[in-house]
Parts: sequence; structure tokens; C-alpha cells
Amino acid sequence: MVHPRVLRALTTPLIGHMDPAFLGVMNDIQALLRAVFQTTNRFTIAVSGTGSAGMEASIVNLVEPGDAVIVGINGVFGTRWATTVERCGGTAIRVEAPWGEPIDPEAIEQALRRSGPVKALAIVQAETSTGAWQPLEPIASLCRTHDMLFLVDAVTSLGGAPVEIDRWGIDVCYSGTQKCLSCPPGLAPFTLSDRALAAIKARRSPCQSWYFDMALIADYWAEGSRAYHHTAPISMLYALREALRLVDEEGLPARFARHQLNHDAMIAGLSELGLFPLPSKSHRLPMLICVTVPPHIPEAEIRTSLLSTYGIEIGGGLGPLKGKVWRIGLMGESSTEAHVLTLLNALEELFIRHGWCSTPGVALQAAARVYSRTAS
Amino acid sequence: MVHPRVLRALTTPLIGHMDPAFLGVMNDIQALLRAVFQTTNRFTIAVSGTGSAGMEASIVNLVEPGDAVIVGINGVFGTRWATTVERCGGTAIRVEAPWGEPIDPEAIEQALRRSGPVKALAIVQAETSTGAWQPLEPIASLCRTHDMLFLVDAVTSLGGAPVEIDRWGIDVCYSGTQKCLSCPPGLAPFTLSDRALAAIKARRSPCQSWYFDMALIADYWAEGSRAYHHTAPISMLYALREALRLVDEEGLPARFARHQLNHDAMIAGLSELGLFPLPSKSHRLPMLICVTVPPHIPEAEIRTSLLSTYGIEIGGGLGPLKGKVWRIGLMGESSTEAHVLTLLNALEELFIRHGWCSTPGVALQAAARVYSRTAS
Repeated sequence: MVHPRVLRALTTPLIGHMDPAFLGVMNDIQALLRAVFQTTNRFTIAVSGTGSAGMEASIVNLVEPGDAVIVGINGVFGTRWATTVERCGGTAIRVEAPWGEPIDPEAIEQALRRSGPVKALAIVQAETSTGAWQPLEPIASLCRTHDMLFLVDAVTSLGGAPVEIDRWGIDVCYSGTQKCLSCPPGLAPFTLSDRALAAIKARRSPCQSWYFDMALIADYWAEGSRAYHHTAPISMLYALREALRLVDEEGLPARFARHQLNHDAMIAGLSELGLFPLPSKSHRLPMLICVTVPPHIPEAEIRTSLLSTYGIEIGGGLGPLKGKVWRIGLMGESSTEAHVLTLLNALEELFIRHGWCSTPGVALQAAARVYSRTAS
Repeated sequence: MVHPRVLRALTTPLIGHMDPAFLGVMNDIQALLRAVFQTTNRFTIAVSGTGSAGMEASIVNLVEPGDAVIVGINGVFGTRWATTVERCGGTAIRVEAPWGEPIDPEAIEQALRRSGPVKALAIVQAETSTGAWQPLEPIASLCRTHDMLFLVDAVTSLGGAPVEIDRWGIDVCYSGTQKCLSCPPGLAPFTLSDRALAAIKARRSPCQSWYFDMALIADYWAEGSRAYHHTAPISMLYALREALRLVDEEGLPARFARHQLNHDAMIAGLSELGLFPLPSKSHRLPMLICVTVPPHIPEAEIRTSLLSTYGIEIGGGLGPLKGKVWRIGLMGESSTEAHVLTLLNALEELFIRHGWCSTPGVALQAAARVYSRTAS
């Protein structure tokens, strides 16, 4: 869901992408993005593509042929990142964990003991394919010890949970606009530390991508210079500015607490229906709940009923989790008590009709208890 | 300018990018894009990035390390294309012409005589940096004779002048949405012939870009399969569908005639002010007029006055033409009699104030004569 103010911003009359008035919009976006990324990084922009474009940009700018990169793999997006490293001529050192579990820092240390010099470490903070939450501070400390650039995928987390670029020493981080920022998809917030910028400057060969070459893009986003690179997606940037203003008005602590509360209520309700989260209690994403679907439930059929009868879209499993889990997003504008109760009510109705639940209201009541406990 | 229907389409409520209803939107876009590209190519889609993303996608999918590509260079965009070929490990064989003139097919033949095997030929149909129009039929015939893939940049031309993919035997063509299609920037219409698809299938190495890998993207856009690749920029696709419907309602012949008429009227008026087109009469773009600014006119100052006093944005020169030309766009919804007369009137006022013109109304009358001739 997108706030009406964001939809209205999309329809702002178009002006030229080099018009001084538009350059003001870009300045606003940079300042607001720095706040949400909790960084003072000068290079903080929106890449003209979706979150996957951010992933690609993170690699093509920093990895040169022959460079080794440790990639944490415990879901779809880590796997994709490793592929991107290889398409760049780099070596991806895969450090794996079962889907739904975080990457163990000890496993990274083991990989480091076996490998030669490693240029960077890439890890997904919020695995959308499994609902698993990766604690970043222990990894950050490893990166500092071993002098590796620290790359973080915050596509699903940014704006819904802390992403503390400066405090954790993250060098490269990207996100998407359509998750917890509640802006339509099409842009990738992107930030680079001075260390990452220095690594880009020290490249032996030009970036293999012209479209994502941050050395060139920096000149377009740099206040004062603004050299033409490519035409910015004007309307999307209007929308992003408005979405970021909404984040700013709510404030990050309140926003994070709201995501956590609705997550807790949803889990309480789902548990009453026999639907339990895949990740362990300490590693669950507040904005994306991934529950295991018991084998007697035809998961695809129920998802179709939810969409066609109730107008609710939830995600199925990807890769090895296909047919085994549901992924329920409670992100940004969509993280509301109304959404929690609406989905729990719909699931209850379907479960009672199929005979998988016999106590009407059990899930709704469990969620309501969470809300009343917080209110009191 | 963007039609109000397109702005309204941008605000269509968001649905999931794998929602069956959204897949219907994608089908509509494919059919409408085929019509405007005048092709039956099954692979006709919108790339999730701006026109420059289309350029990058055209190269990374078809050029492998060691491949030779002839690139026509007579402006900014040909130069950029050559750079992209080199970043892909290919060899760019530059065939040049002075900025403002088309590439001579004879120069291409000469380059072919000197070179080894050449995989593809890349040429810009409408050079936005010079206003020069490249006739494509003679080049098409060369591509067939020498068995080269034929790559065409139609960023500025598509929807404003003929781009006949099938009739001319073009293998790869891309455009942008913000030119003659009058949709906000952010997507690149893109089409591949069966010959181009076969070349992609026959690659020795994977595409260096994951985000632009058309072998993967094909599975997302293919009716019936729709495998997840990256999240589509939903709102932008709503807007593109509506913009393409407007093109379809007007009809291509009427749309092309409208662009030509407003171009002719603008040229008639500008000539009275001593502003003459850079390209020769037979090689002028109907949608972008590039005129030489006489040395006594402070071109940047006049452009600033046009923007701040009259709210009209025209472009300055790029590269070697910086400070020497004005580039006036009359594209899509902006190609109107009102726009022609408004700009001519503003220029007349400024020119009279500076003493560069002494006959009030001379430019407007010249334009009016073109319109009345056509009306009668």
C-alpha cells in the first residue's frame, strides 16, 4: 500500500531532469535518504532501477575480475548476489546456512582461514524469501578485522527496522522503494561510504556497466556539479521524496515499534491456527512473516482464495520453500492493525470451513490481546 | 508534457507484480508496443530503466568479449554506445561523421573492408544531441549483406516518426518513454528479433549483467510462464500502457504528420529570427530541432530567460556543440501549435528587446503561414 500523498506526488507536473527546481527535489531526497540510512555519507542517492538494480550496482562498481567476495547464502537473494559477483569476473566464496537461519559469523571466519585475500563481504540483512533476520554487528566487526568492504542488502528492512550505516560501518548498502518505504517499485536507495568511494576510484579497469557506473552518476547527484548522465525517472523521484517525508514525519523509532507490534500480533494469531514462523524467535523479520504451512493444507489453493475472495495477496515460497511456506508482508503503510485483523479473520474463516480450526475468533482474540497489552 | 490520462494512470492502486490482473497489464503493453514498433516480434517489452538502460541492455546481451561492433558516431549517443561495447569486452569500430550529419553507408563499407568479421552494427536513428536524422534502409541492406545484427537507438524517434522494425530488418531496438511516447521517464521499450534471440541463446558466456539479462527477463514477460525476475515498476507500467493507448487512438500516420507539421512551422519561424537548423534539409528530426545560435547571442542567458520568464525549457548544446546550438523538443503531447507559437513569441520578444530583430510578429506570421497552408 502506498499513502495517498505518494500517489498524488506521482502526478506532479513533469519538469526537465536538469531544471534547477528538479535539482532541489534531488537535494531533498538525498537528505531524507541519509536520515533513513542513519548515515552522513555524501554519496546517498536513488539508483534508476528496482532493488535488483541496487544489487547489481553494488557489485559492478566494487568487484573487478579476480576479486574474491564472501557472500552469505541462506535464501534467494544471497544466491542471486553470488551469481552477480561471478558475472563480474569475481570469485564468490559462498558461506551457507539453512534457509530461514542466519549466517553464522564463525562460518565466515572459517571461510576466511581457507581463502586468500577477500575484498568484500556481502550479506542480506532481511531475507525476503525466508523471513530471516541477520544480525549485522558481529559481521561488521569481522569486516573491520579482515579489512573487507561490508556490503548489505537492506531491500526489505529499510524504513521498517534499524539500518545503521555509520554505526555498523557498512560500506555499501541498497534498498528498494516498494517495501517499508511504501513507494511504488522502480528505484533503489543506495549509499556508499568514503572507503567504498576510494575503492571505486582505485579500480584498475572501468566499471563494466555504464548505466550503473557510480563514478559517473556521482557527478549527476553531486550538488553544484550536476553533469548529465541519464534522464532521471522524474515522477518516481517525486513519489520517493513524499514517501520519505512520511517516514520522517512518523520518526524512525515510532515506525520500527509499529512494525514490531503488528508483527507480534500477527504471529500470536497465526500460532493459534497452527502456523508457526520458519525462523527462530531471535531471527525474525518484523516486516515479513514466513510461516511453515502444514502438509494437510493445500497452500496454493488457499492463497488463491485469499486473493480472489478477500482481496489479500500473500506470497508463496521460493526455491526449496516452494509449496511449503507462506510469506506475509506487513511493510510500511501496510503494517497496520486493520491488515493484521483482516488477514487473520480471512484465514480463520477458510480454516473453519475446511475443518482445520474449530474455535471461531481464536486467532483474532490472540492478536487483540497483543494490542491491548501494548495499549495499557 | 504528459497527457492527464497518463498522470491519472500513474495513481492506479498498486497490485502485486505477479498478480494475474497485473499480468494482463503486461500483455496489453506488449501488444501496444508491437504496434508502435511496427513489429510482430514476440520479445517486445519495457526494460525497467531509462533509455540508457535500453542502450546497455542492447549491448550486454549481444556482445561478448572479443566481438567486433561497428558503431556510427555523429553525436553524444553514438559515443556512449561505443563506450558500452568496450566495457563489455567488445571492439567498437567507430565510423564517424561530423556532428549534425548522418553516417554515410559508404564509410561503413570502407570500415568493413578493413575489418575482420563484425557481429553487429549499432546506429542512432535520431541523434538527440544534434537533431540529425539517420536514414536506416541503406544501413539495413548492408547488415543483411554482411550478416551483421542490426541495432538501432530509437529513443527520440519512437512514436514521432516511423520505426519499422520488421520492414527494415532491425534486430535490436530500444527507446525511452519520455520522448514521443509522452510518458514519464523510467522505462525503455525494447524489442528483439528471432535472429537476435538466437544470438543470445548461442552465447559462449553468460550475460555480464543479471539485471538486464534478457534470457531471464524473457521468462517474466512470456505469456504463460511469468517466472519472477525482478519486481516490475508497476506504476510506470500503468502509465506506459495509457500513453501507448493514446498513441494507438491517434494512429501512427496522424501522429507522424502532426510532428512534421509543427516542425515545419517552427523552422519557418526560427529562420525569420536568423536561427537555422544544424542538419541539412533532408536529415532533420521532426521532433527535435537543433539550430545554430549566432555568436552575438549569449545562448545560456537567453535559455535562462526563457525558463524563468516564460516557463519554457529548451536544451543547450552537448559536447563540442556546447554554447553553439539550441535544441528544441516538439515531442508527443508537446508537439502542438500552441507550443510552437508560444516559443516563437517568447524568442521574438527577447530578440526585439536585445535589438536582434526589428519586425514584431515576423516569426509568428511565418509559422502561421505553414499552418494555414496545411489547413487549406
